[in-house]
Amino acid sequence: MENLDASTHITKRHNTRRGRLARHNAPFESPIYHRRKIPAYAMLDDAALRRIEDQADWILHNIGIEFHDDQTALDLFAAAGAQVEGTRVRFEPGLVRALCATAPRQFRLHARNPKNTVTLGGDDVVLMPGYGSPFVSDLERGRRYATLEDFHNFVKLTYAAPNLHHSGGTVVEPTDIAVNKRHLDMVLAHLTLSDKPFMGSVTAVERAQDSIEMARLVFGAGFMSRHAVMQANINVNSPLVYDHTMSGALRVYAAANQCVCVSPAIFAGAMGPLSPAAVAAQTLAEAMVGIALTQLVRKGCPVVFGSFHSTMNLRSGALTFGSPEANMTTMAIAQLGRRLGVPVRAGGGQITASNAPDAQAMQDSAGAMWSTLLSGAHQVWHAAGWLEGGLVMSYEKFVLDLDHCGAMLKLLQGFGTEEEAFGRDAYLETGPGQNFLSTAHTLRHYTTANFAPAVPEGGAFETWQENGAKTADHRATALWQKMLADYQQPAMDEAIHSALTAFVAERKASMPDEWY
Amino acid sequence: MENLDASTHITKRHNTRRGRLARHNAPFESPIYHRRKIPAYAMLDDAALRRIEDQADWILHNIGIEFHDDQTALDLFAAAGAQVEGTRVRFEPGLVRALCATAPRQFRLHARNPKNTVTLGGDDVVLMPGYGSPFVSDLERGRRYATLEDFHNFVKLTYAAPNLHHSGGTVVEPTDIAVNKRHLDMVLAHLTLSDKPFMGSVTAVERAQDSIEMARLVFGAGFMSRHAVMQANINVNSPLVYDHTMSGALRVYAAANQCVCVSPAIFAGAMGPLSPAAVAAQTLAEAMVGIALTQLVRKGCPVVFGSFHSTMNLRSGALTFGSPEANMTTMAIAQLGRRLGVPVRAGGGQITASNAPDAQAMQDSAGAMWSTLLSGAHQVWHAAGWLEGGLVMSYEKFVLDLDHCGAMLKLLQGFGTEEEAFGRDAYLETGPGQNFLSTAHTLRHYTTANFAPAVPEGGAFETWQENGAKTADHRATALWQKMLADYQQPAMDEAIHSALTAFVAERKASMPDEWY
Repeated sequence: MENLDASTHITKRHNTRRGRLARHNAPFESPIYHRRKIPAYAMLDDAALRRIEDQADWILHNIGIEFHDDQTALDLFAAAGAQVEGTRVRFEPGLVRALCATAPRQFRLHARNPKNTVTLGGDDVVLMPGYGSPFVSDLERGRRYATLEDFHNFVKLTYAAPNLHHSGGTVVEPTDIAVNKRHLDMVLAHLTLSDKPFMGSVTAVERAQDSIEMARLVFGAGFMSRHAVMQANINVNSPLVYDHTMSGALRVYAAANQCVCVSPAIFAGAMGPLSPAAVAAQTLAEAMVGIALTQLVRKGCPVVFGSFHSTMNLRSGALTFGSPEANMTTMAIAQLGRRLGVPVRAGGGQITASNAPDAQAMQDSAGAMWSTLLSGAHQVWHAAGWLEGGLVMSYEKFVLDLDHCGAMLKLLQGFGTEEEAFGRDAYLETGPGQNFLSTAHTLRHYTTANFAPAVPEGGAFETWQENGAKTADHRATALWQKMLADYQQPAMDEAIHSALTAFVAERKASMPDEWY
Repeated sequence: MENLDASTHITKRHNTRRGRLARHNAPFESPIYHRRKIPAYAMLDDAALRRIEDQADWILHNIGIEFHDDQTALDLFAAAGAQVEGTRVRFEPGLVRALCATAPRQFRLHARNPKNTVTLGGDDVVLMPGYGSPFVSDLERGRRYATLEDFHNFVKLTYAAPNLHHSGGTVVEPTDIAVNKRHLDMVLAHLTLSDKPFMGSVTAVERAQDSIEMARLVFGAGFMSRHAVMQANINVNSPLVYDHTMSGALRVYAAANQCVCVSPAIFAGAMGPLSPAAVAAQTLAEAMVGIALTQLVRKGCPVVFGSFHSTMNLRSGALTFGSPEANMTTMAIAQLGRRLGVPVRAGGGQITASNAPDAQAMQDSAGAMWSTLLSGAHQVWHAAGWLEGGLVMSYEKFVLDLDHCGAMLKLLQGFGTEEEAFGRDAYLETGPGQNFLSTAHTLRHYTTANFAPAVPEGGAFETWQENGAKTADHRATALWQKMLADYQQPAMDEAIHSALTAFVAERKASMPDEWY
């Protein structure tokens, strides 16, 4: 299967058994904007950023970090100059940052369709669907456990969404599939129902290995030894602990030269002190240690400085999302990651604690998305669908979020100030008190000037009322249904497809179902 | 009535017949943040801003601007060096900007309660309720024409809202009052039901004069000759026309040394060319001319560079709000106004075309608010309540928006990076894998660390469902009802109150009702 450029090779084979997405029928008509053209917002000045970096060094020097049941990781750190006592690893100030220096500033995450290959780092922006929800909901069937069918649906919806650039990972938990076999179905779905970049499994070392094996069937081992074609989500057991599952999976992906995203997960006041500055510093400390480990396993391994954080209502104990403190933390983390010199996944996305795709959901989500995108994050997880603190992927919120993804990506393009933009001819054609609607300038631009959301407008109040007074969430239902109905699977070579399904069948047959 | 510092004087009189707002009972508990402590976001670089400024000069030089039925304004411009032909006024490049130079960079807008006096300009941020809606809605009584009772309610709600710093103007249209007498009831309500800064009437020259007369009864003519105690909303009849009502009212307020906000109102593609750059340039051109006129009437008169703009769905013709193009325009206008050196009201606020306080409403509103506040605007109109493109003030959206105002104002505070913020003692007290909830650091900060919204949380899904699955808008109803029930009128000297009501009665008796 190996070849010099597997992904190009695959898409050249046009004797496909499946069709292609008919883009002209897609409800989301906006172009795919990948690149930021406006400056990243710098909330903090250099002095504040240095104080946070110093605090990260203080944590790693004075408190240290634990690696549980992973002697290999401990040995690697000891050999690199860290002080290892039992499971605790401490670092002289500056050491971890120095170990991160071999991670690439930017790199390509290859998709099997080269048109969907993305760059992580630089000015590119990569948006992804939600991750990890055990439940789904829609306004017709209500809230329920997610199944493999839902997983397939969200992979298909993401594939059909021009404003999502990456298929994601555990877009929902397929709870009808045995825990020890889910990864096989999930990776198979990402590889066959979509041709965008994707994430492999990290829930056990052997599942990480299975994920990589499956990717090799598509991309070839040689190509993958030099290029990243998949990404892994390594969550830190914050505060300051890596368990062996996560550090083990990290080492598997790093050894295979695949992209490792290291994401501390800190709820301010619970897994770290109660302040944005402290959460940012601890996130930096924890993430740098994981990134350093990737580089000790394989220098130059592509990484993403990830983060996930939340605030809490300290009266009720409820987690809150999109809060001002969380959004400030997100902006700080993006600045810190950019200074570290690696691509950043900065905390936010379109996240909310709301139980429904309502006003609260969108206040939370829009604010979190503004802070994420304005701050200069390179990769945005949970950009669509997330509800109820991540317990639920909502079909309606997914398409509502897609519209906001498109709007924000348009905003990141800025606007031109060239002569044509000023429309001087329109002023000469019309004048004070006159209407510009029929000027040649307006006619030249009206089809492309404005971003067009896909969720239908409500219309004038009287019309809206006659049509059942449907709020935006209810207008969204028909949209995801149409997207699924219109879905056409991307082409794949028959032999590769057979190899993948055979691999999955063989691995499934090799072990009994486990449900824990 | 005249005195050296009328507003201080008034509040010293504590023999009041009315109580004071019991702040400890207010549902919105957040402190009142007035001041921005994080940098304004600069979307455009100097070269782009200069091109927009050059385009404003081009418009004013080559096209010019019209003043209808206002020979006084035309004469003032001619005397200042403009070319006047009929009603058209043209300016050499740079002339209008030079005429604006005497407007103050920042100034105080005095409230009758000195604690509520605000600064316009500098780093201060002044938030205001919606303006101008002929309808109101709430989830119990539905959508209906606004009445004076609704007007009173929104003045009371704004008074009770710590995150609104200004009582606004025509917060709704009191449609049950004759058109030629509404201004009397509106100004009376702002002056007696609230003690925050407010706006006077501009719908006719004599109504502007009435508004000023009423303010003089409270603040004294001498104080007002030196200090601004009220603000006027002068809308340009974009494109490039001032009608005599607006330029007449402008001259009345400027002559009285009261604050004039000049707000062009441009729907891109209809009242100006279809591009953010063109809308920004035309807004600058139109606003500068109005500001110049205030300075020709009275040098040093306090002004605000206002703006109102919208995009359209160019397929349906519907106005859209919170679109990426509109948000970019808002950010550009804030930069242009700051360069002009006057306080800026930059376009946005919490605006939406949605018919309900739903997901769309908050996607639109949150985005418009982020662009407005991050861009460095000094004054934000329509920060609460606006729905349906401004046709409706929604009681529920008002309180939902208040929460977002509070969250955004908290965000503008940034966060500290002093030693206490990092919580080193918490790390020494606990450690890797441990919980920070009961650390001394968390206990020191948990009551103040996080912004607390006032709209009740939904709670866990099961609880939420048992409680009727109330979306955020439905949870908001009880909140505005409680705010109105708890409202206590601010104190006012009995003699002043009598003078105001007598003035209103006399003016009302002097003319027959007019309903157009």
